[in-house]
Amino acid sequence: MLQGVVVNLTITEVGLRDGIQSEAHFVPTADKIRLIDALFAAGVRSIEATSFVSPHAVPQMADAEDVVRGVHKPIGTRLCALAPNSRGVHAAIRAGVDDIVVFLSASESHNRKNLNRSIDASLAAIEETVALAVSAGVGVKGAIAVAFGCPFEGDVESSSVVRIARAFTDAGVSRITLGDTTGMASPEVVKRVCGELKDALPNVEPALHFHNTRGMALLNVAAGLGLGINTYESALGGTGGCPFAPGATGNVCTEDLVNFLHESGHETGINLEALIDASVDLERVLGRTLPGQVMRAGPRSRLHPLDSVRTATAKVTI
Amino acid sequence: MLQGVVVNLTITEVGLRDGIQSEAHFVPTADKIRLIDALFAAGVRSIEATSFVSPHAVPQMADAEDVVRGVHKPIGTRLCALAPNSRGVHAAIRAGVDDIVVFLSASESHNRKNLNRSIDASLAAIEETVALAVSAGVGVKGAIAVAFGCPFEGDVESSSVVRIARAFTDAGVSRITLGDTTGMASPEVVKRVCGELKDALPNVEPALHFHNTRGMALLNVAAGLGLGINTYESALGGTGGCPFAPGATGNVCTEDLVNFLHESGHETGINLEALIDASVDLERVLGRTLPGQVMRAGPRSRLHPLDSVRTATAKVTI
Repeated sequence: MLQGVVVNLTITEVGLRDGIQSEAHFVPTADKIRLIDALFAAGVRSIEATSFVSPHAVPQMADAEDVVRGVHKPIGTRLCALAPNSRGVHAAIRAGVDDIVVFLSASESHNRKNLNRSIDASLAAIEETVALAVSAGVGVKGAIAVAFGCPFEGDVESSSVVRIARAFTDAGVSRITLGDTTGMASPEVVKRVCGELKDALPNVEPALHFHNTRGMALLNVAAGLGLGINTYESALGGTGGCPFAPGATGNVCTEDLVNFLHESGHETGINLEALIDASVDLERVLGRTLPGQVMRAGPRSRLHPLDSVRTATAKVTI
Repeated sequence: MLQGVVVNLTITEVGLRDGIQSEAHFVPTADKIRLIDALFAAGVRSIEATSFVSPHAVPQMADAEDVVRGVHKPIGTRLCALAPNSRGVHAAIRAGVDDIVVFLSASESHNRKNLNRSIDASLAAIEETVALAVSAGVGVKGAIAVAFGCPFEGDVESSSVVRIARAFTDAGVSRITLGDTTGMASPEVVKRVCGELKDALPNVEPALHFHNTRGMALLNVAAGLGLGINTYESALGGTGGCPFAPGATGNVCTEDLVNFLHESGHETGINLEALIDASVDLERVLGRTLPGQVMRAGPRSRLHPLDSVRTATAKVTI
């Protein structure tokens, strides 16, 4: 982390989990560990590293325990992992995570599709897993998927988000994350949902997790900043995706987000150039062009010599 | 245009000019005309259709006259074209454009690279071309490139933007456009440059032309909206590019912009679904994946049947 700078925002990197979970080719464990170590070295202090789920459901996460055991976690950082059930929680705790992430959806139809049960049944199961984690001294983050819109139902009632957030808080969850799973948020929707959550539960400051499916992820972050929300989840290179929009980008891109935040006078404690290096490494590992922009263009301070472009190329550009 | 709706924003579509000018393969004239006609039919009222430049400098624009003569321009719309010199202005007027676009750069080094002369020499030449157009009853837009940052020099003094805008206005230019040629703008820079322009020339309301090179184009539009600026230039599909960032996206994408504006309660008079159809057509014509997001995901109101995705695909998505 940079010395003498007041970091006022927290970025949780989710690329190694949400970003790559649907990649067709298995990313070697050593690559995952190297990327996580590079992110920590770049100044990222919070990383969602993997999921303790059935390898049949998500083959990419089959090496969850090896990843968690393999990384070199600097002092003052936090490593978390998804754990959908008590078996996952036990495994995550054994491997040594700081926090587990439990999750469900704000709409009944998405929750049934994702978890094959009702919201109430998910909440009951989560109570048990949270108790397990808390008794082991492990923190719990509670993520609410499709909080800003559901691809099956459309608008999601804020009351559903509030009800789940309250149940999470009552169960002992230490941090609520609102997930924009299929990129349906807009600044107006962010203001509505976060506003109603704040009215109902003034002590809950959510983390926001946006997908850039409709190109609005950074606008939604800006809306969150306007509401005083200081924690955002993003993925290196803009990895991830949306099953309903083949070819659309995935999670909001970490380096694009950090560049925007720094250009807007915020401090993240993250070294942007080191982050770009990690993103270029990830692109090489995945073997395909990632949606990240700043990894290609660099920050605006990266100037070019006059002879770096042929006159014909620059001609009549506005 | 939709009936009974108050349109409060103007979008100038520049995809057929700035968007495709560097495409390696010549886009057939009939395709260009069909796309422009589709844009007008979708409710776009202002289109920058082509450039009257040397076909050696920009081969893609060699059919400028045929394009302008070939489109079916609805009443109340405006068609404009770039014209870098008096020969271009004569040709554009003959072809029947409503407005010509003259341009230079806010930094000396970019102006020399782009136009091979100093800013003062460009201004002197522009005076002449503006007089030509005005005497023919044709409107003139004056575009200022690299207004928010120069890839060679970095920050650009607002005083340079103000000086050029004043010279444009004195010469008879009816509309100033500020171009973010290589995507160096951020909301803070937009506020600074547009604020100083407004202080110096309160009657000039600029149009803003952003590139999404660093993923911030829509944030910059939002900053412009916050300043009360109501005219934006964008390109279908997010076509265009930046010679310094191979692979980075180009102009801000029209359908992504319109979707954001509509989701934010603004009215553009544009039918988003028809715009998406045009973007899909352009993608087919260019034969490569365009950076546009909404052309893939659709507006958030486009819901999906529950059986449209396999359970395994949706699993553990947040």
